[in-house]
Amino acid sequence: MSDFRFALRVYYEDTDAAGIVYYANYLRFMERARTEWLEALGFPLAAFEAAHGVMFAVTRAEIDFLRPARLNDRLDVTVAPRAVRGARLDVAQEIHRGDESLVRGLIVLACVDVARLRPARIPRVLAERLQVSRP
Amino acid sequence: MSDFRFALRVYYEDTDAAGIVYYANYLRFMERARTEWLEALGFPLAAFEAAHGVMFAVTRAEIDFLRPARLNDRLDVTVAPRAVRGARLDVAQEIHRGDESLVRGLIVLACVDVARLRPARIPRVLAERLQVSRP
Amino acid sequence: MSDFRFALRVYYEDTDAAGIVYYANYLRFMERARTEWLEALGFPLAAFEAAHGVMFAVTRAEIDFLRPARLNDRLDVTVAPRAVRGARLDVAQEIHRGDESLVRGLIVLACVDVARLRPARIPRVLAERLQVSRP
Amino acid sequence: MSDFRFALRVYYEDTDAAGIVYYANYLRFMERARTEWLEALGFPLAAFEAAHGVMFAVTRAEIDFLRPARLNDRLDVTVAPRAVRGARLDVAQEIHRGDESLVRGLIVLACVDVARLRPARIPRVLAERLQVSRP
Repeated sequence: MSDFRFALRVYYEDTDAAGIVYYANYLRFMERARTEWLEALGFPLAAFEAAHGVMFAVTRAEIDFLRPARLNDRLDVTVAPRAVRGARLDVAQEIHRGDESLVRGLIVLACVDVARLRPARIPRVLAERLQVSRP
Repeated sequence: MSDFRFALRVYYEDTDAAGIVYYANYLRFMERARTEWLEALGFPLAAFEAAHGVMFAVTRAEIDFLRPARLNDRLDVTVAPRAVRGARLDVAQEIHRGDESLVRGLIVLACVDVARLRPARIPRVLAERLQVSRP
Repeated sequence: MSDFRFALRVYYEDTDAAGIVYYANYLRFMERARTEWLEALGFPLAAFEAAHGVMFAVTRAEIDFLRPARLNDRLDVTVAPRAVRGARLDVAQEIHRGDESLVRGLIVLACVDVARLRPARIPRVLAERLQVSRP
Repeated sequence: MSDFRFALRVYYEDTDAAGIVYYANYLRFMERARTEWLEALGFPLAAFEAAHGVMFAVTRAEIDFLRPARLNDRLDVTVAPRAVRGARLDVAQEIHRGDESLVRGLIVLACVDVARLRPARIPRVLAERLQVSRP
């Protein structure tokens, strides 16, 4: 199964005075892609929170900045689930410009009960849908 | 009475690929200054909202971008109330680099009842404190 | 001729603790729409700067914030040229959610010679293409 | 020797609709602290780039988001060099609210020759100043 892929363009707002995308903004791009990925899986953010009383929070990010993106670049951001266990969801993300890999990340998400602000098991309907391949 | 003055520095995050501060970010600088100004007047944001059940929302902004600010610049942002009437507060703001005026704005704020999300008269204790000079 | 229209979605990054889009971020949305509009007119940003040695800078913005946009909203941002004269280009922009008008702005742009950082006449090929309707 | 410490306040611009600081914005806070730290060491960003023809780029970030920061919080961001070798500088950073640790990060920086955009040995005058403690 191929990874989910989200396309975006780099605007002035994303760049900095070094002429490249500001490093924190790649994390914005990754979050946009995760939102669209969940929606494509059938779990639009607002409806998901309303139906299950949970949201996702990032608890850890490991990001490798390999090559810079520049103004007007068209980028693809991929999302691939790597592990689902209890309240924890690990996703691998990558930002590409054509064939070049620019940024690679591993994002650890925690499913959080919105009312109590405590970790909550990922709803089964989503966990099953994530289809994490197992060896 | 001299205007309230808030100092800040320009970081990479504030700039864009044109080598200057991205235009929308001056509005961030202005909002930081308004927050510090209210706090200096004795109305820290969180306490003010908790005590009076109101917050301020920007309803109009007129901004003149005169000269660009650059990476590492030290800027001053001023705030001067211009008019207070009912739920409406007009403030004039200016961003300086030393003696140079870089950006000038008129910001119209509406006092909003947080629970009902409707305009609400500016609390008298603040209105009196604003000390708008009258001719 | 109908206005140019650019669609976007509101992500967490665009919102603030008041649960709505942070006011400065509407200016980002407007700039994205202007970039796509110029590209749709046949003037992709990078190529335009390379070919003519000019770029556009915002010199004035008048923005009315009528109603707030919220997380996950799908918005349309329109661009309509209002006046072209010498180095100056005025555009009207509006941000809609369906039939509702949320934000309205008048943006004044200056065409700037990149090498000398001084105002420069808008290249004729673009000025003609802007097709500003005249009464 | 105690770590370098930079104080900041959380404004609306830093938060998101979940009522907390947006995750990517902690990386902005960390970069502000690194800039002030270099300046405090005697290496103001602009002068350093002009004098040595080099700048720093982030090549890897490992961030643990432990607890959320909220609107109006006053935070401290620390910077502590961990390793200096050739073109590479590792720094540990932590974001505190009083005694609470909110975010912890390891940031890997590469010293880059600005003209050639290639890794360059960290200038000796800075490398010596970093005073990385060795066991």
